[in-house]
Amino acid sequence: MSKTVTSACLIIIGNEILSGRTQDTNLAHLSGVLNELGIRMLEARVIPDIESTIVDTVNQCRNRFDYVFTTGGIGPTHDDITADSLAKAFGVEIEEHPEVAALIKQRPATPEVMASRLRMARIPVGATLIENPTGGPPGFQLGNVFVMAGVPMVMQAMASTFDRNRLPGGEPVRSLTVGAFLGESQVAEALSEIQSRYPEIDLGSYPFYRPDGYGTNLVMRGTEEDDLKAMAEAVTDMISSFGATPYPGGAPAAIQDD
Amino acid sequence: MSKTVTSACLIIIGNEILSGRTQDTNLAHLSGVLNELGIRMLEARVIPDIESTIVDTVNQCRNRFDYVFTTGGIGPTHDDITADSLAKAFGVEIEEHPEVAALIKQRPATPEVMASRLRMARIPVGATLIENPTGGPPGFQLGNVFVMAGVPMVMQAMASTFDRNRLPGGEPVRSLTVGAFLGESQVAEALSEIQSRYPEIDLGSYPFYRPDGYGTNLVMRGTEEDDLKAMAEAVTDMISSFGATPYPGGAPAAIQDD
Repeated sequence: MSKTVTSACLIIIGNEILSGRTQDTNLAHLSGVLNELGIRMLEARVIPDIESTIVDTVNQCRNRFDYVFTTGGIGPTHDDITADSLAKAFGVEIEEHPEVAALIKQRPATPEVMASRLRMARIPVGATLIENPTGGPPGFQLGNVFVMAGVPMVMQAMASTFDRNRLPGGEPVRSLTVGAFLGESQVAEALSEIQSRYPEIDLGSYPFYRPDGYGTNLVMRGTEEDDLKAMAEAVTDMISSFGATPYPGGAPAAIQDD
Repeated sequence: MSKTVTSACLIIIGNEILSGRTQDTNLAHLSGVLNELGIRMLEARVIPDIESTIVDTVNQCRNRFDYVFTTGGIGPTHDDITADSLAKAFGVEIEEHPEVAALIKQRPATPEVMASRLRMARIPVGATLIENPTGGPPGFQLGNVFVMAGVPMVMQAMASTFDRNRLPGGEPVRSLTVGAFLGESQVAEALSEIQSRYPEIDLGSYPFYRPDGYGTNLVMRGTEEDDLKAMAEAVTDMISSFGATPYPGGAPAAIQDD
C-alpha cells in the first residue's frame, strides 16, 4: 500500500476476551463497517480492565491512527472503567450527561439500582454521543476516539449509525477471492510475481485443509476496481495453468481456513 | 491482582484478521492452554503483514511480558514474513535449518515448488524448534518469543506440546461462574462490595440478552482455590437475597453474552 489510507485501530477492553472465556467478534464486524467507509483497520489490541493500561493504550493509539475505537467496559458495574479512563487519557472532567441521565430515568428502579445505572450516564466533558439504536445508553466520541459497548448486539447497533459525515474516509475497500485445490507452495512463486505487478492491491494466500482435500484461497483487497479485476483474472489464469479449477468467491464448502 | 503473575502477550499477524475476513480463534485457545500453566494472557495485538510493524511490535512486547507468542505468517508465500521479521527484531541471521529442511524434503516436489516450501525451513539462528504434531514444518522459539502457525488446527497442535519445562509459570488459574436472571445494575453495588473482600480474585460481570429474558453471568478467576470458592458462595448468596435463582456454571442456554 503506497497510497495514504485512512487508518483505524480497535482497542478491545475486557478480561473475558483475554482469559479465553469470550470469543471476540467485534473486530471482524467493525472492520467490515469501516471497509465500506474506506477506512482500514490497521491494528487491534486486546487489553485488561486496568485503568493505567487503558489510559496508556488510548494515548498511544490516538496519536498513531486517524480513528480509534474501543469496545467494552461501559456498563454499570465496578469493572466498567472505560469512560473514566478516557477522561483521564484526555485530561478532561467526567460528568453526568443530562440527556443520557434522562433516558436512563425513563425506566423506574430502586434508588440503589438507579445509582448503579446512572454510572452509564457519566460522559467525559466535550464528548459527543454515539446513538444506541437498541434503546440503551449511548456510546461517545471524544476527539478521534469512539467508545462503544462490548456486547456484540449493542456494539453492532452503535456501528450502524456511522456514516461518512462522522467518519470521513476514502474509497470503499473491495475484495475478491479466488480459491483452488492447490497447495500454497505450488502457487507461491506465481503469486509473488502477480503481487509485484499490482502493488496497490493486497494479495493474501490462505491455506485450508479439509476431508476432501487441501488448497488455498487467494484474497485480493484494494480500492482500485480495475486493478482488482485485472489481478483476479491473472490469479484465475495462473490456477488454470496448473490444471486446477479456479473457484470465484473461494473454494466451496470450506470448513476451516486461515 | 496484587501478586506477581507470569505474563504473556499474543501477537496475531495477519491482514485477514484485521480486514474482518477471518475470525481469530487462536487467542481464546492459547489463553486456555496458558491458564493451565499458570500464565496469564495480559495483552493481544493484531497487526498487518508489514515487516517494520512486526519488528517493532515484537521488540516492544518481548521487553514487557514474560512470554510472547505469535501466530501467522510462517507459510511458503510472499506474505509470510514472520521468520525474517523475528530474525531482524533479535538482530540475528536466518538460515535453512537442516532438520526442518530434511522433513520438508521427505515429500517430493518439483524444484520450483520445493524452493517455495523450503522457505518454511528458514529459522533464525539460535532458535529452538516447536514441534508440529500435524507433521508439517515446526514453529520456533527465539528468546522468550514463541512463533507459531496461524491455521488454528496447526497452532493448536503446536500449543499441545507446551509444558512446564518449556514454559515455567505459576499456579493454574481457575475460574468459577455463577449466573442469574438479574440485570447488571441490580447487582452492581453488591458485586463491588464482594470484590473488595477478595482482592486476589478477579470478579467480572457479563450481561446477556435473549428471548427468555436478560441477566448477568458473574465470572471469578484466580489461583487461590479457597478464596475462589468463598467468593462464589458470597455471589450465590447475593443472588438468592434478590429472590433470583443462582445458576452455577452460568445461566443456562445462553445464546449471546459478553
